[in-house]
Amino acid sequence: MGAVRAEGGVSREIAEFVAAARFEDLPAAIVHEAKRSLLNIIGTGISGARDETVEIALRALSRFSGRADATVIGRGERIDALGAAFLNAASANVSDFDDTHAPTVIHPSAPVAPVLFALAELRPVTGAELLLGFALGVEIACRMGIAVSPAHYRRGWHVTATCGVLGAAMAAGKLLRLDPARLVWALGNAATQSCGLVESLGHPAKSLSIGNAARNGLLSAVLAEDGFSGPERPLEGRFGFLAVMGAAADTAPVGGYGESWELARNSYKVYPGGVVIHPAIDCALAVRAWTGWILDDVADIVVRGHRLLCERGDRPDVTTGREAQLSVQHSVAVALLFGRVGLAEYTDGCVNDPAVLALRGKVRVEEAPEFAVEGAAMEVVMRDGARHRASVAAARGSLARPPDDAELERKFLDLAGALRPAEELRRLIDMVWGLDRARDAAELLALSTPGR
Amino acid sequence: MGAVRAEGGVSREIAEFVAAARFEDLPAAIVHEAKRSLLNIIGTGISGARDETVEIALRALSRFSGRADATVIGRGERIDALGAAFLNAASANVSDFDDTHAPTVIHPSAPVAPVLFALAELRPVTGAELLLGFALGVEIACRMGIAVSPAHYRRGWHVTATCGVLGAAMAAGKLLRLDPARLVWALGNAATQSCGLVESLGHPAKSLSIGNAARNGLLSAVLAEDGFSGPERPLEGRFGFLAVMGAAADTAPVGGYGESWELARNSYKVYPGGVVIHPAIDCALAVRAWTGWILDDVADIVVRGHRLLCERGDRPDVTTGREAQLSVQHSVAVALLFGRVGLAEYTDGCVNDPAVLALRGKVRVEEAPEFAVEGAAMEVVMRDGARHRASVAAARGSLARPPDDAELERKFLDLAGALRPAEELRRLIDMVWGLDRARDAAELLALSTPGR
Repeated sequence: MGAVRAEGGVSREIAEFVAAARFEDLPAAIVHEAKRSLLNIIGTGISGARDETVEIALRALSRFSGRADATVIGRGERIDALGAAFLNAASANVSDFDDTHAPTVIHPSAPVAPVLFALAELRPVTGAELLLGFALGVEIACRMGIAVSPAHYRRGWHVTATCGVLGAAMAAGKLLRLDPARLVWALGNAATQSCGLVESLGHPAKSLSIGNAARNGLLSAVLAEDGFSGPERPLEGRFGFLAVMGAAADTAPVGGYGESWELARNSYKVYPGGVVIHPAIDCALAVRAWTGWILDDVADIVVRGHRLLCERGDRPDVTTGREAQLSVQHSVAVALLFGRVGLAEYTDGCVNDPAVLALRGKVRVEEAPEFAVEGAAMEVVMRDGARHRASVAAARGSLARPPDDAELERKFLDLAGALRPAEELRRLIDMVWGLDRARDAAELLALSTPGR
Repeated sequence: MGAVRAEGGVSREIAEFVAAARFEDLPAAIVHEAKRSLLNIIGTGISGARDETVEIALRALSRFSGRADATVIGRGERIDALGAAFLNAASANVSDFDDTHAPTVIHPSAPVAPVLFALAELRPVTGAELLLGFALGVEIACRMGIAVSPAHYRRGWHVTATCGVLGAAMAAGKLLRLDPARLVWALGNAATQSCGLVESLGHPAKSLSIGNAARNGLLSAVLAEDGFSGPERPLEGRFGFLAVMGAAADTAPVGGYGESWELARNSYKVYPGGVVIHPAIDCALAVRAWTGWILDDVADIVVRGHRLLCERGDRPDVTTGREAQLSVQHSVAVALLFGRVGLAEYTDGCVNDPAVLALRGKVRVEEAPEFAVEGAAMEVVMRDGARHRASVAAARGSLARPPDDAELERKFLDLAGALRPAEELRRLIDMVWGLDRARDAAELLALSTPGR
């Protein structure tokens, strides 16, 4: 714990930063990145809200809730604010199509944004307040993630959940206008609720960790507001978050809060599924765009890339949409056949489409040490022996090659298209881009449910 | 992880044990110990329900709950079942007067019993079912505690919460009659919610961990019943509970479930406050019982005992009731003055009573290597030079010297006396002793609230 500050301490430092932060302090680029993150997370939330995992959780929680204060994004039902925070976080992340803070692999928006949405329905919250709370919540979650990386995740902690609850608590605490002392209590309440195991990934149990990160972060701040106190040094104390869940060698939270913002390192997938496969999809879409060749004449397709592309993505025989999200063979086949790779290309039906099966049988994966994990190359061998090649150094959606706003809008419309007519979804998109001027942030929620 | 079973696995072993267990399998002594634990925990719950920590949590949770399905023990309010599980667990443990599983320092009843109470109000549950579920929940919480001890607590995990949620999930899963596959899911849901930091001890934040252990254990089982699935090996998997929260050297869950029961190693404090002080209180009460001496003539009091008695208990200048629970000086003074050491002797008022202040100023604490932590000696030096001595090898309330049933009843009546007239509390006591024959366990809850 050598580098953790002794005087004042990181808990107090964070609390004072959060309490003092003003919307005017946010650089314009960070405000815009916050909007991009929110548009993305509302889209994945609307889409994820129909996942069976969320259906089960909604049914279970509804049995215990008698209130209907808050919106369940993407659905007609309403529930209490804690339940809504849980469900909206679970929905946003359930399909692994949400954002990723590149240095930590934290998905920061899922635990943080739903807390702000829930509070915006309980009391008046402006768009600027919501954006500031969001930037602060993401900042603290990611900073704490950096402080405990990489040992924390390697040990088996699901870092989105374990650090997300801290960010969620600070986001909520900011909207509740807690003073620094109460923000330290909120951190303590959150730290003692920090949990989530990597073992649960790939199962509904994962969504329980993500949902709880939001729900318990909100509860942490609400309790602190009411006087529910905690230790003075919940993060850096002898038995606090950093000592217990980090490793001595790498638990040094970096100072300089407000001088840089972690939102600048947030990234957005443009395809569902494992990011390691995305450069292969880019190659396939590039190949497809060529003219003068016929797919039926393809004899063989070789994808070459990083070790992880092979270890995680070489899955020739998948049978379900969920498995296919980690299959290079399936992903390349649908990219070449359909020219697009969205959620519709990862249904069980699509995975078992005879045309997809035939083409994916021609795809092989090979390790090539010259590629970073963001890059890959593809060679298409035709029956006549001709060869077509494509390569990318950094996949679309990686931090080096972010989708532009128009691409994020298209992703949103793809995810949310079944919810409302396009012109109404357009209103939601416009509201996000103009959120800093919105008087009532809760309108976002009204636009995120099925139209009446 | 060498000793953790590879085939079948401990998660499956626990699930099959819980699914197959019948009330008839419980030894009579374990049934009786379960009743003693329940009587004790209802008493500490009734008393703790008036603690400010619980007041704050009740107000906060009530704002989010519209349902009134379940009893908040010791109070007139009702709340949803998840909220009641939280509050009843927090109340039961808030004053540190609940039971202790000696080998692990887990307080097993607080996370486990409230889950069963909540379910008993949602569906018909017999007394025998409740006793069986309780014994199973305590068993799993304590077994998992043994599996990760001592490294887990030493690292900073609040073991009552981290292992309690697993026991709570199994207790609830038994009442819900989950099959082994669903019990494994419930374990997975609980494992990914396992949390609680030692840093929070001594603060309201501690009660958040304890409350959540019950609440989240119940939720884990309810979700599993509804099909919310999880990993196959949530405890022993590569990134499961044992690997992440234990230490490789000591994470070997012991087999032989049902051959012995951890409830047999449960202990009950007869005085509030830190157990290390209890042998000194015993000595003081023994000294007071002598005849032929006058307290005003005391010149000096020397308490001699284990290193921990000095390190934790040598606090001559405390000002609040909470601090006084760890003060040998205060505890010895009230024992000598009043002849009893209950919650009334640990109020702020009693701590600042001039007679107490005068007497505690005469008390000194000395380390004596010949004593185990359960023992102590006292020497009272009179003004005329006469000396009186007393010593105990094992304090009352330690595992070696458990309170008998009559003593537990007196403790219960002391804790619950303000709630209802004695004859009504007597009905509750009688119901606990006859719980194995009770058709509706929920009657316990009705008797645990203020009379109407």
